Amino acid sequence: MKVIIVGGVAGGASCAARLRRLDEKAEILMVERGPYVSYANCGLPYHIGGVIEKESSLLVSTEQTFRAVFAIDCRTRCEVVGISPKKKTVELKNHVTGAVTTEKYDRLVLSPGAAPIRPPLPGIDLPGIFSVRTVPDAREIREWIERGSSDSTGEHTSSGFPLDKTKRAVVVGGGYIGLEMAENLVHRGLEVTVVEMLDQVMAPLDPECARLVERHLEKHGVRLALNDGVSGFKQTADGSLEVLTKSGKAHPADIVILAIGVRPETGLAKMAGLEIGQRGGIRVDEQMRTSDPDIFAVGDAVEVKDFVTGEWSLIALAGPANRQGRIVADVIAGRSSRFRGTQGTSVIGIFGATIAATGANEKLLTRLGQKDFEKVYLFPNSHAGYYPGAKTIVLKVIFRKSDGRLLGAQALGLDGVEKRIDALAMAIQMGATVYDLEEAELCYAPPFGSAKDPVNFAGMVPADVLRGDMPLCHWTSLDGGFLLDVRNPPELAVESVPGALNIPLPELRARLGELPRDREILVICRSAQRAYYATRILLQNGFKARNISGGMLSRSMLAAK
Amino acid sequence: MKVIIVGGVAGGASCAARLRRLDEKAEILMVERGPYVSYANCGLPYHIGGVIEKESSLLVSTEQTFRAVFAIDCRTRCEVVGISPKKKTVELKNHVTGAVTTEKYDRLVLSPGAAPIRPPLPGIDLPGIFSVRTVPDAREIREWIERGSSDSTGEHTSSGFPLDKTKRAVVVGGGYIGLEMAENLVHRGLEVTVVEMLDQVMAPLDPECARLVERHLEKHGVRLALNDGVSGFKQTADGSLEVLTKSGKAHPADIVILAIGVRPETGLAKMAGLEIGQRGGIRVDEQMRTSDPDIFAVGDAVEVKDFVTGEWSLIALAGPANRQGRIVADVIAGRSSRFRGTQGTSVIGIFGATIAATGANEKLLTRLGQKDFEKVYLFPNSHAGYYPGAKTIVLKVIFRKSDGRLLGAQALGLDGVEKRIDALAMAIQMGATVYDLEEAELCYAPPFGSAKDPVNFAGMVPADVLRGDMPLCHWTSLDGGFLLDVRNPPELAVESVPGALNIPLPELRARLGELPRDREILVICRSAQRAYYATRILLQNGFKARNISGGMLSRSMLAAK
Repeated sequence: MKVIIVGGVAGGASCAARLRRLDEKAEILMVERGPYVSYANCGLPYHIGGVIEKESSLLVSTEQTFRAVFAIDCRTRCEVVGISPKKKTVELKNHVTGAVTTEKYDRLVLSPGAAPIRPPLPGIDLPGIFSVRTVPDAREIREWIERGSSDSTGEHTSSGFPLDKTKRAVVVGGGYIGLEMAENLVHRGLEVTVVEMLDQVMAPLDPECARLVERHLEKHGVRLALNDGVSGFKQTADGSLEVLTKSGKAHPADIVILAIGVRPETGLAKMAGLEIGQRGGIRVDEQMRTSDPDIFAVGDAVEVKDFVTGEWSLIALAGPANRQGRIVADVIAGRSSRFRGTQGTSVIGIFGATIAATGANEKLLTRLGQKDFEKVYLFPNSHAGYYPGAKTIVLKVIFRKSDGRLLGAQALGLDGVEKRIDALAMAIQMGATVYDLEEAELCYAPPFGSAKDPVNFAGMVPADVLRGDMPLCHWTSLDGGFLLDVRNPPELAVESVPGALNIPLPELRARLGELPRDREILVICRSAQRAYYATRILLQNGFKARNISGGMLSRSMLAAK
Repeated sequence: MKVIIVGGVAGGASCAARLRRLDEKAEILMVERGPYVSYANCGLPYHIGGVIEKESSLLVSTEQTFRAVFAIDCRTRCEVVGISPKKKTVELKNHVTGAVTTEKYDRLVLSPGAAPIRPPLPGIDLPGIFSVRTVPDAREIREWIERGSSDSTGEHTSSGFPLDKTKRAVVVGGGYIGLEMAENLVHRGLEVTVVEMLDQVMAPLDPECARLVERHLEKHGVRLALNDGVSGFKQTADGSLEVLTKSGKAHPADIVILAIGVRPETGLAKMAGLEIGQRGGIRVDEQMRTSDPDIFAVGDAVEVKDFVTGEWSLIALAGPANRQGRIVADVIAGRSSRFRGTQGTSVIGIFGATIAATGANEKLLTRLGQKDFEKVYLFPNSHAGYYPGAKTIVLKVIFRKSDGRLLGAQALGLDGVEKRIDALAMAIQMGATVYDLEEAELCYAPPFGSAKDPVNFAGMVPADVLRGDMPLCHWTSLDGGFLLDVRNPPELAVESVPGALNIPLPELRARLGELPRDREILVICRSAQRAYYATRILLQNGFKARNISGGMLSRSMLAAK
């Protein structure tokens, strides 16, 4: 059995190592086009920012380790330039010697990854414009930035990089890598502008959650130019760059980072005549087998089923890539492992804040035409409010109306964010409902959580809605209801809702006569907890009432921009 | 419908508030013996330590709030001194006026909590010996400690508390409250000794995990006297105390904290003739109904089913108490809610370390005579090793051999501990197997986790064992196997295992001839990862081999003390 693995990072490397553990006799050849295998590409922005000081820290494993420990014929700077599925051969080009050889395989595993998108815009190949995919990419960016710091003539260098004034970076793309780059460039002292074609950063978030990220970025000095596509790049007289946008703006830049997104590397798959999916990734079955039964594919290059929606999706994440690599090794070794799909769990840290998400978001469900879902906004504390240092977590929970199944969650905050998303991710994986979340028994001590954890609230509030105890509405669809604000007057002095009647909660039972019986009463408070109590009082006194989810706190999310 | 709720903290307060939300018309009377309702007893040690500065921070809700917002007749300093289940009445004693009145109920809810155990030892009532249960307890302890600081005569005060030398505290009991108190007293500048009857602190942990906690405590200056019961207390000539132990020791003390454990308050239940369970708690059904169908009981006073083992257990935790209170409100309001049992999820922070656990531990399973389980020791990083600041997490995972069901987990470390236990707690709740954990999709970015999260490892390693890929053994049962250490020589120079043959992993394939074919080879490395690779090589070359779980790292846990 000879297995050739194309691509030596994440999925490919995981597959190779596990295959050797399962089959000591298999002949395994792993080829990698670049100079390194098994490197930490998720760490590249942090290396550029100087948080990860040494480039060598990024090299998780080496060619030598694969040879010595796993007895794998591991070749870097070696590219597959041809595939013949009929003959079951690949053409390998050694980029050091230039030699091309032919190798036979019994099973072929494609783990080519995804390439940063470089649209064919005018000037895109100008010096100073970089993508962030490989260790050499990171090295070039570091060198480009540091070049300007090495002397102090006060002039631009020949590369156009200024030597003694604040350097300006434009990051094109407001996704995970774009924002991690933005933060890391700020840490290096650059002035950073993020140009994003969409009207929000971080596409995995719904827009109202992204608004909070945008404000946090701006607070830390990042300029945002949303809703504006790049039309081209220009070199100015002093050698620096300008990023031109469709709206006619010109953003000056000493360095440009392209982080528009990635596109599955399907060149080899197409060469082999393999089926490509509707999203542009290699189509595979649950065992990661392509349309050719002897060729498997894993990682950023393949389409996988979204665990929640059942839709094909492209997910460029290291976790799923590693799992897929292991599954292919199992299958090649004769086991029946299956990939269960992805739920898109992801996290990013930006200027001290954590933003994480799992499962489906509202945008996606709406795009798919689904109606059987509801959402709530919650603002729990990261830990017991009476213990110092508690921070508010902004939590959006999406669940199925018909059966309470948890569909997705998005969370942001300064503390305790990703642990709630991890618990919710586990819940989604196991098919949990919001009724299960109500009963979850999680770690509680004052520095860590609350007796009712945010994860419990993510169950209790939706369950209150589904049981009919708390009819819900949202600021985006008030439908002409009668607005009742049950906060206390000092809170209204800070911010109030025009047209809302104020009856503080403790006075409500005595003042029911002031409320209309022929209109639906929409109840407002700070976070929707007191409004829930008020809604209960109103409903049981024969009023029609709904709670405005998230209260004034969700209103301020929607109001931003 | 008139409902009387006895006890206004956690379970009682939750029940009262939810019952009002569900039933605006019910007549609800909540009585609390102490001066406060709904206070944060979990915060008491931190208030004593000064972390939570203001006593008022501990008061989560007040009598006034219950009256004004929930229209609940809430009475503090009011104790139930008699119950007549036949007449459905209780005798209430007002501790302010001394008046005793009789109140009728339709439904009675008992939430009396559990009382700190005060064994009838000689001297237990001496001044300077305190329990930590209520806000007044905490106040008395603070005052006792601060009394010595208020002047500087260099003498003992009349209470025996020294004024200008380091004060000495003895904490009796090494459970959660005892250790939280120990840390907080150290923070206040006291010399602290913990006396514990068992041979370990923190009973929810298995002893080898507790060893690490003990070393951490000692590193931070806490003296431990394990395996030694207290026999009495004595006042010395200078007015200070001595804690006398069964082994004949005398620990000098200026203050003694009793944190031996708690005992369910079953006085009222016994007075009402209610069934008491075998563990000494009030016996209830899944709807928290006692043997009298009109009387419910919740919180620390009741026995509940352990979710994992099915055994009756006493769990003094705020989370389950709150959930039980809600369930009783549901049931009284005519709903069919059921308590699913407890899994004992708990966490404690001690001197910067976090220790957390969920589900069953090995001690318990062994005591129950269960054989269908296995354990693994893991030492994953809190986040990607290539990102600065990663800390080792010590993780013990217990799973069922027959079907892979996750049974329990214990974790310790300086970072990222409780979030893994939360994810595993959710997994246990949902009946997950280690095969599910392998596929878990959790948050990964370099500052937060790894592409293979510790939770994934908690699945992959057990699954390797269950699939037969990695036969396992433990340091405690080497059964005369042949010891093979596959680490590199520099690692052996630091610490080696007597009698083990060293063949570094990369040389193993070439040196198989040095190994016996007639004996089982037990493979050692640092954390058991390389040993796993070696085990695979050996098994596939016809050797009998097992991996020693946790390698040198678990050996050092067991070797401590």
